[in-house]
Amino acid sequence: MKSQQATQVVLASRPATARASLENFRVETTAMPVPGAGQVLLRIDTLSLDPYMRGRMNDVRSYAKPVEISEPMAGESVATVIESHAPGFEPGDMVLAHTGWRSHAAMDTAGLKKLDIDGIAPSAYLGVLGMPGFTAWSGLEVIGKPKAGETLVVGAASGPVGSLVGQLAKLAGLRTVGIAGGAKKCAYLIEELGFDAAIDHRSPSFAQELQAACPDGIDVYFENIGGAVWNAVLPLLNQYARVPVCGLMAQVSGKLERDASTDHLAATMRAVLTRSLQIRGYINYEFTEQYFDAFLREVGTLLREGKIKHLEDVTVGLENAPQAFLDMIDGRNFGKVVVQIATT
Amino acid sequence: MKSQQATQVVLASRPATARASLENFRVETTAMPVPGAGQVLLRIDTLSLDPYMRGRMNDVRSYAKPVEISEPMAGESVATVIESHAPGFEPGDMVLAHTGWRSHAAMDTAGLKKLDIDGIAPSAYLGVLGMPGFTAWSGLEVIGKPKAGETLVVGAASGPVGSLVGQLAKLAGLRTVGIAGGAKKCAYLIEELGFDAAIDHRSPSFAQELQAACPDGIDVYFENIGGAVWNAVLPLLNQYARVPVCGLMAQVSGKLERDASTDHLAATMRAVLTRSLQIRGYINYEFTEQYFDAFLREVGTLLREGKIKHLEDVTVGLENAPQAFLDMIDGRNFGKVVVQIATT
Repeated sequence: MKSQQATQVVLASRPATARASLENFRVETTAMPVPGAGQVLLRIDTLSLDPYMRGRMNDVRSYAKPVEISEPMAGESVATVIESHAPGFEPGDMVLAHTGWRSHAAMDTAGLKKLDIDGIAPSAYLGVLGMPGFTAWSGLEVIGKPKAGETLVVGAASGPVGSLVGQLAKLAGLRTVGIAGGAKKCAYLIEELGFDAAIDHRSPSFAQELQAACPDGIDVYFENIGGAVWNAVLPLLNQYARVPVCGLMAQVSGKLERDASTDHLAATMRAVLTRSLQIRGYINYEFTEQYFDAFLREVGTLLREGKIKHLEDVTVGLENAPQAFLDMIDGRNFGKVVVQIATT
Repeated sequence: MKSQQATQVVLASRPATARASLENFRVETTAMPVPGAGQVLLRIDTLSLDPYMRGRMNDVRSYAKPVEISEPMAGESVATVIESHAPGFEPGDMVLAHTGWRSHAAMDTAGLKKLDIDGIAPSAYLGVLGMPGFTAWSGLEVIGKPKAGETLVVGAASGPVGSLVGQLAKLAGLRTVGIAGGAKKCAYLIEELGFDAAIDHRSPSFAQELQAACPDGIDVYFENIGGAVWNAVLPLLNQYARVPVCGLMAQVSGKLERDASTDHLAATMRAVLTRSLQIRGYINYEFTEQYFDAFLREVGTLLREGKIKHLEDVTVGLENAPQAFLDMIDGRNFGKVVVQIATT
C-alpha cells in the first residue's frame, strides 16, 4: 500500500563555521513523487551518510556542486523499485541510486545500478562494496602500490574506508598501523581487524606513539584526516613514500587542527623534495571505469569468504539522519553510517 | 708537463642563515694527488655548479650526505685522464666524474663515465646532456606526462633545467609559460627558446600576470622554486594537474619567501584533494637506470639537429667558483653555470 506522502531532509542554511549543526537541516513532508515516462518510483530502504557531504553544504569550489538551500541533501542509497515506467525495471528490483536524503524518489534509470544480492547484504553496496570500499581499494592499489614488508598507516581506521584499507594492506603482507579516536575503536582495530598497531589520536603523546609503532618508518600513508595528524606523520615518511589523499576530515570538521600561525607547507615541500614523496589527491570516480569491476570481484570474493569484516552503524528513521551525520563528522560513529528508512 | 701542486675549494664553515657567503669557502693549495693501483689521475677541465650544492652545505638530513667541514665541496666535472693505472682508461680520455671542486683528482674508475664527444661539446654533459638535462627530461616525461594542448609552467625557466623543460614541452605541443627573474631572461625565453609567455617573478603583479598567461589553467607545474611562487600557481592548477618537484630554490636561498605566519599547507592539501593533484618530489638518479639511455638518445639527437638551445655561464678559474656559486643562488647567472679550470 503506497503512502500519499514522502519525507525529505533539506539544507536549511549553510554552516557559519567549520562545525555544522542541526539548524542547518530541515525535515519536510512532501507529496509522494510521481514517476513520468521512462522513470521508476523508488522506496529508499537505506541511506548512506558520508563525510564528503559536509563539503557540499558549503558554497565553495569542490569536486562536486554544493547542495542548494532548501534542496534535499545529496546522498546515495539502496532502494526498491515500487512502480516502473521504464523497460528493464520491475517492482521489487533492488538498486543503488543517487536519491538524496529522501524516503521516495521518482528517477530516470540512467544512473541506477541493479544490485547482485546473492550472498551479500544490500547495504554492503553503500559501504565495503560501494563508494567507501572503492575509495579504499583504488587509493591503495592505484596510488599506494603496497609491497609486502612495507609499513602502512591509515587514518580514521575504524571507518568504512580506513578499515578496508587496513585489512587489504594486512592481506598484502604489510605492517598495518591504524589511527582512530578512543580506546574502543583502537581495540577493535587490533582484535577484530588484525591491525598490527592502533594509535589514539586523542592521546597527548600521539606523535611519539605513532613513531614507536612505525620502527621502519612509513611507506604508505593513507590520508583522510589532515590537520595535526599530518605533522606527526611527515617526519616518519620514508623515501619514495606514497600518500593517497581521499579526505581531510580534520580540516572540514574543525577538529585536530594544526597551529595556523606557522607555515607547515615549507617543511612538507622540503620533505617531498628530499624524500621523493608522492602526494596524490583523488576521488574514487576517477578510477571507476578502469577498476570498479576488478574491485567488486576481488572484495566481493573476500567478503563472501569471510576474509574481510565490516561494521555498520545504523540509525533508524530519516528524521534522525541530521544527528547521525553530525555524530559521524565528530567521530562518534563506529562503522559505516547508514540510515534505515523503509520499515517494511 | 704535470704541475706539482693542485688546488681545491673546501667548505670552511656552514652558513649561519639561508644565505651562504664567501666566508663559508676556502681555496687551498695541496700536493698533487697520486693515483694508486686501479686508479686514474684526472685533470679537471670544467666543473659544474648546481643549486643542490647549497643543501649539502647544511648539516641536515637530505637526499645526500652533507659536505664535511674542511672537505672539498662536492661536484661533478668533465675531466681528462692524464695518468692511468686502470685498464680501459688511457691518457687523453675524457670522462664525467664526481671529483668535487678540485683541479686534479686521483680516483677509482667505477664512477667514471667516458664521454662520446662526437658533435657534442664536452661541457654539455654537465648541463643539457647531464644531470640538469636528465632532471628536466625525467621529471617532465615520467611525472609530468605532458599532453599536446595542455599548459605547462616552469620556474627558473632560463636555467639549465627549466630551459630544457620548456623547450621539450613546446616540442610536445604544450602551451609553455616560463617564470624567470628580470626582463632580460624573460625576453630570452620568448625570443630564443620559443616559450609562449614569460613572467618576471620580481613583478609586483606577478600573480595576476601568471593568471593572464594561463587562460586555461595549469596542467603541469614544474616546481623548482617554492616559496611565494607556489601561492600564485596553486589556484591555477587544473584537475589532475601534475607537479614534479625537483628543487625549492626560494626555500634554500631565503628569497621569494612566503608569509611564514600563516599555514599555507591547509589550502594546498585542500587543493590536492578537491582537484586530484599529484605532487611528486624526485631526484634524477631515481630514474637513471630505467631512462638515462633514452634521454641521451632523444636529447642528444635534438641537440645535434639544433632543435634544442642551451646556454653556458662560464667562470674562469677554480678560485672564482665560490662567487660564481653565490651569484647562481641569487639568480644572477644566465645559463648553466660552469667553471673552466684547466687552461691547457
